[in-house]
Amino acid sequence: MVNFDYQTPTRLIFGRGVVAEKLQEVMGQYGNRVLMTYGGGSIKRSGLYAQVKELLKDKEIHELSGIQPNPKFNPSVLDGVRICREKQIDVILAVGGGSVLDCTKAIAGAALSDADPWDVVTMKVPTLKAIPIVDIITLAATGSEYDSGGVISRTETNDKLPYFSKHVFPAVSFIDPTYTFTLPLKQTLAGIADCINHIMEQYFCGEHIMMNDAFMEGAIKSLMKNVRIVMQEPDNYEARAEIFYATTLGCNGIYSLGNSPGGWPMHAIEHALSAYYDITHGEGLAIVTPRWMKHILNVRTLERFVAFGTGVFGISRELPEMEIAEQAIQAIHDFYKGIGMPMTLREVGIDESRIDEMAHHIAVNEGLDQAWAPLQEADIAAILRACL
Amino acid sequence: MVNFDYQTPTRLIFGRGVVAEKLQEVMGQYGNRVLMTYGGGSIKRSGLYAQVKELLKDKEIHELSGIQPNPKFNPSVLDGVRICREKQIDVILAVGGGSVLDCTKAIAGAALSDADPWDVVTMKVPTLKAIPIVDIITLAATGSEYDSGGVISRTETNDKLPYFSKHVFPAVSFIDPTYTFTLPLKQTLAGIADCINHIMEQYFCGEHIMMNDAFMEGAIKSLMKNVRIVMQEPDNYEARAEIFYATTLGCNGIYSLGNSPGGWPMHAIEHALSAYYDITHGEGLAIVTPRWMKHILNVRTLERFVAFGTGVFGISRELPEMEIAEQAIQAIHDFYKGIGMPMTLREVGIDESRIDEMAHHIAVNEGLDQAWAPLQEADIAAILRACL
Repeated sequence: MVNFDYQTPTRLIFGRGVVAEKLQEVMGQYGNRVLMTYGGGSIKRSGLYAQVKELLKDKEIHELSGIQPNPKFNPSVLDGVRICREKQIDVILAVGGGSVLDCTKAIAGAALSDADPWDVVTMKVPTLKAIPIVDIITLAATGSEYDSGGVISRTETNDKLPYFSKHVFPAVSFIDPTYTFTLPLKQTLAGIADCINHIMEQYFCGEHIMMNDAFMEGAIKSLMKNVRIVMQEPDNYEARAEIFYATTLGCNGIYSLGNSPGGWPMHAIEHALSAYYDITHGEGLAIVTPRWMKHILNVRTLERFVAFGTGVFGISRELPEMEIAEQAIQAIHDFYKGIGMPMTLREVGIDESRIDEMAHHIAVNEGLDQAWAPLQEADIAAILRACL
Repeated sequence: MVNFDYQTPTRLIFGRGVVAEKLQEVMGQYGNRVLMTYGGGSIKRSGLYAQVKELLKDKEIHELSGIQPNPKFNPSVLDGVRICREKQIDVILAVGGGSVLDCTKAIAGAALSDADPWDVVTMKVPTLKAIPIVDIITLAATGSEYDSGGVISRTETNDKLPYFSKHVFPAVSFIDPTYTFTLPLKQTLAGIADCINHIMEQYFCGEHIMMNDAFMEGAIKSLMKNVRIVMQEPDNYEARAEIFYATTLGCNGIYSLGNSPGGWPMHAIEHALSAYYDITHGEGLAIVTPRWMKHILNVRTLERFVAFGTGVFGISRELPEMEIAEQAIQAIHDFYKGIGMPMTLREVGIDESRIDEMAHHIAVNEGLDQAWAPLQEADIAAILRACL
């Protein structure tokens, strides 16, 4: 078990109707000038936008809309920073999915810094303070509502970079699973794949403890069971709630305190795919997962595959260990295929042409040669080719 | 899944050597006047007292020692409040087990209130602020290092009462599993029983979710496995660390977010035992557990017993459900017996003489008629008699 230093100060307000019940009380703890950040029109169609505006009608609300999936430094972060400075914003209320919240974190950190916003987002300059963030999260996927990080893309340079600071933990996250009843199936599935992958990145590592394994296996089994329920009944509250709870815990570390770091290799590889091609992050992860597993399987990593295969898929411990591992890889592929995820790069519009360029970009920027299962540039290229 | 509103702001610094590494940095964030609280002489014998004094030699340190197990309102809480007021203490550093920390929370909350300290501790008067608390926890048991509550005893009235306030979450908890290497076996076992029981109180309830079950079953299995390791090798770091991690999460709610409350009936019953007879809390819990289970087993509660028996003890799902439940009750009894816990009240010096008086006290004060498995006074008396 490795040493850890862990703190997640965010207050989670979870359940049916919690926005109507507590948003005014929470926002009343901050000053009057609010920046409300959101994406496209979905919160207007759903009525959430109107509800929030009504609940906060006594506040001075400024708006930053149009934040895209894989949120962009330019224009979204820059516009948000400008508004915060000009209007002396007291609190930012993010309403939407993980991308809206990730973008909001970058704005909150950069707005109170004298440095160039890009230097804050790339962490060349440390974040020393941030505007408080409250969020109403509408998508069960990234876990951004319970962590201190985000991922920001810069289109000009094909960069998709993580931004972290303990100052950008949301102060309060509102999570009402009913908001996910009307999501397009594609987004529900991509969120499930994102979360399963978050958990696998923490599960596949050198040092690990028994109760973390049980927690993570239980969470993945819950996601796999409940996604099939919501595909049949999109408004099944219990299933939506279990999914949202599993995804909320995805990235703050609670699944794996005491585990050694694995290096998040699948995310590193996928980030290049969505930076170069702007594909859906969860779909990219589903495609990469079984190919990464197959590539790193060897006698040294075998124990994790056996634990995963028996713990998640119930594969018999009586089988030879290598066979358990191969069945586990097949099982995760078949699970994704079975729920209708695209499982090749070609299905999401990516061909061979830039594979080597992406592999080089990943090898230079992501430090995967230091991961639990080290990957050199040739390994990364081989994994990407296997995804075609 | 039930709605929840959850926040645990405590920073956990966990692992070998963390006090030497980070205590000065942490304490440097507070003012100069420190109240150090501790129990008997064990931290002096272990060298921890001297280490802390050396690390904090630039601070003005006042001391409150002699805090007992089942910590007493009079004199410990009252003395602590007096010192805090007289010396204008900036931060309290609790060094010891759960009792020292529970007592410290009551001191921290009462010291900044104008009300009578007993009214604060009994929550007749709300706690509006508290002196910041840092702790070095030396016993894996209560989980007080990661929650906002404590239990305070008042000997004159046989009261053993919970005290809660969000203001008394420790700001920082230092957890070094090596401190538990030299614990007397009795304390190690009592801590294990305390934690298993904390988890069971959260597991046996009406509404529950799949991933919480997996987490809690995994934690109990980890405790049951690792206690047998440390009985053979008291200085096995990995086993001590897994135990400490499981106990740390025991009472802040993270094991069961979204579960409905069970009412903590076993704790309610045990609190009377240790209030009337000052027995070791964990031993009382081990004795009560199988008798409570047996008493509340019926067709309505059966599902929880089946999940528990198959998930924790690997009892076959092929058996009739009532048989799984009975085997599960026997298995938890045999586990405690097998590690050498006393399993009858007589073994801890309690006879029949005050059973009815305790049952009445519990029935009047604990609200167990509202628990998931409701208990009237006659039920409580029957459970206590079955423990004899």
